[in-house]
Amino acid sequence: MRFTIPANAKTWVEIDSDTEFPIQNLPFAPFFHAESEQPGAGFRIGNYVFDVMTWTELSPERDAIDLNCFSIFQEEFAAKVSEARKRVYQILSEEANDTVRARARECLVPAESLELWAGVEPRTFVDFYSGIHHASNVGRMFRPDQPPLLPNYRHLPIGYHGRASSVMPSGFDVIRPWGQIKPGDGDPIFTPTRELDFELEMGAWIGIDTDLGEQLSVADAQDAIAGFVLVNDWSARDVQRWEYQPLGPFLAKSFMTSFSEWMVLPDALIGAEVSGIPQEPAPLPYLSHPEPRSYDIQLEVTLQSARMQNPQVIAQSNSKYLYWSFAQQIAHMTSNGTPLCCGDLYASGTISGEEPGTFGSMLELTWRGTQPITLAETGETRTFLEDGDTLTLRGWTMVNGIKIGFGEVSATVLSANPAVAR
Amino acid sequence: MRFTIPANAKTWVEIDSDTEFPIQNLPFAPFFHAESEQPGAGFRIGNYVFDVMTWTELSPERDAIDLNCFSIFQEEFAAKVSEARKRVYQILSEEANDTVRARARECLVPAESLELWAGVEPRTFVDFYSGIHHASNVGRMFRPDQPPLLPNYRHLPIGYHGRASSVMPSGFDVIRPWGQIKPGDGDPIFTPTRELDFELEMGAWIGIDTDLGEQLSVADAQDAIAGFVLVNDWSARDVQRWEYQPLGPFLAKSFMTSFSEWMVLPDALIGAEVSGIPQEPAPLPYLSHPEPRSYDIQLEVTLQSARMQNPQVIAQSNSKYLYWSFAQQIAHMTSNGTPLCCGDLYASGTISGEEPGTFGSMLELTWRGTQPITLAETGETRTFLEDGDTLTLRGWTMVNGIKIGFGEVSATVLSANPAVAR
Repeated sequence: MRFTIPANAKTWVEIDSDTEFPIQNLPFAPFFHAESEQPGAGFRIGNYVFDVMTWTELSPERDAIDLNCFSIFQEEFAAKVSEARKRVYQILSEEANDTVRARARECLVPAESLELWAGVEPRTFVDFYSGIHHASNVGRMFRPDQPPLLPNYRHLPIGYHGRASSVMPSGFDVIRPWGQIKPGDGDPIFTPTRELDFELEMGAWIGIDTDLGEQLSVADAQDAIAGFVLVNDWSARDVQRWEYQPLGPFLAKSFMTSFSEWMVLPDALIGAEVSGIPQEPAPLPYLSHPEPRSYDIQLEVTLQSARMQNPQVIAQSNSKYLYWSFAQQIAHMTSNGTPLCCGDLYASGTISGEEPGTFGSMLELTWRGTQPITLAETGETRTFLEDGDTLTLRGWTMVNGIKIGFGEVSATVLSANPAVAR
Repeated sequence: MRFTIPANAKTWVEIDSDTEFPIQNLPFAPFFHAESEQPGAGFRIGNYVFDVMTWTELSPERDAIDLNCFSIFQEEFAAKVSEARKRVYQILSEEANDTVRARARECLVPAESLELWAGVEPRTFVDFYSGIHHASNVGRMFRPDQPPLLPNYRHLPIGYHGRASSVMPSGFDVIRPWGQIKPGDGDPIFTPTRELDFELEMGAWIGIDTDLGEQLSVADAQDAIAGFVLVNDWSARDVQRWEYQPLGPFLAKSFMTSFSEWMVLPDALIGAEVSGIPQEPAPLPYLSHPEPRSYDIQLEVTLQSARMQNPQVIAQSNSKYLYWSFAQQIAHMTSNGTPLCCGDLYASGTISGEEPGTFGSMLELTWRGTQPITLAETGETRTFLEDGDTLTLRGWTMVNGIKIGFGEVSATVLSANPAVAR
């Protein structure tokens, strides 16, 4: 069902030549449609959003054209959004005739005028652990006397359910959370976290519903993906250390998770595939994945303190460092028959490269706080994130010389709220 | 806001004298309203359900009477359902006049005619670990060389997010899940679980929405509870053992979770409180809970194999064995500012007593399979659950001599589906 927009395709819409949202990308986002007070949605091109609901209303041939992809919760969303993108490409292509262009002009809205994802949160949120270098680094830090990877790591995609109600789009600032921590040998205390961290991840929005008991093959799992975003899985490391045994991370992660607003469809990433890290031993048949298995998506993390004028790049990584593909993660999820839902968001886990400057968290970048980062502009240092810091993730890939971008996920750290009871 | 129905109150509705649904209980459940094709809801009395939507439609004074509690996802549901129950009590009380009774008769539907919870699943599902004897038993089995409880256990309510999309009401049969397991020293294999287990739990449906960053005190957390149900957190122990490090249980639990259909309001449990297990050390102030902290709810587990004519009681326990109260669990949840949602379901963790016959899972009852249970009627033995077994949880308490029951949560084990790929 995937559709590639040719590299030589051009649009009649006025866009910058170096935009990360050329006609070959056309990523999707839902928004609240102020006029109709209905869920709305659009596809991004340059600095504009093509509003699919307005197009549908203006079109005399509306019954014949399915641009009905207003909600990520609707049935068969993955197929619908892919079909809609194909049609939007035709409308915005320089081959469109004057009638189409005239009508389409009424559907183009400046991107900054829309409140994207207003009132939408994922149906469920799952976070995997597929960044093998991150998992190895954590192992080296917390289990120095054992092999860095646990025995199960190369046999199945490790994951856990996170909290859906605090998953927010880029731009929502993160409030430093309170939590119970245990400082050294002392008694536990309730305090704003002292080890606020980010995690550089990617996420896949699910666009199919499955039944209880239904299993997806890896091939079918590919088709379950509606689109990809960047994800920042905010973490409170001191809370995590004290709470996580034996049932895994809970409040250390649930205070907020941020994602980038523009959902890049798998269709736009055809041509960006790379082999990925060799899987040895070979996965069991239900997890077997033909090559290429990974995407070559460049990832970048910047940090800007309240005193700085410009952000500083603190890490550069790449999605090819994921050991398990999204399709493998999804096939594994359904292997026990649990239903997938349109609007589920599944994240990859932290994507670190092999070298220090490529790590996807402060925990790794500062090696557990022992090697602080220096912010060159002001001379400030960081072990974990401070109030007023703005943390931004960006991602992009090149397909046949065309830049396909994910935009950014950015948030500023706000100081902790007063606590109810200390 | 809580309202106690007097112990000497009587109803004009014909009900059995030993019903677990007397007028003092009046538990709530949503259902799909076939006539109006709208979400409907009702309160249980004896073998009848009082349909609140029909009442609202029949009532000339409908604007003055708020029986608008049709959906557990509606704002301020906890307060609304409590208010509605109070009003339904007046309608069904023997003090109601003939006009009210005549109208109310049109709202009484036989309980077995309704498909309760049709199309409703929790907004999010969280499972705690507050059964201290269960946690100790698991520690003894899996970490025999260490103290049975981990150091954090008495300081905070351990919990994790579970899967919302596979939470099903009583009556949905459980399909034996496939999963990846590692037998002994061999290679991992993909197989139907060989260690299917139940977990005896209680759950609280949440009936308030909170904002990002908002913290609830323990007192406010009490008011967040719309009602209680029984929960069976189905588990695949062999899958769990292999997958759970380091991020906790995932597919071992996500294939299905079952709950009893009738939500018993905290209002109906006033008078059923008991002190509970002493909390030492004293919890931090944000978790401090006035006594009494627990409920004296008797819990019973029965097992019936395909060959048996009658179920056999295999365990008897009590909700008073929970170390952390539901209010403490909820206050802890919000301590980092994550939003609660109407329609969230939070379960307690497995509730085991101190003696072998009081344990809330096969894992403990058979002590990891080493002490099989004998089913007296047929002479069959069980370590874990077999295909065709029907597992049922029941719960009830006595308040001033009146039985307040939870009904049951029951499901039969179906054999595994054919797998997609082995």
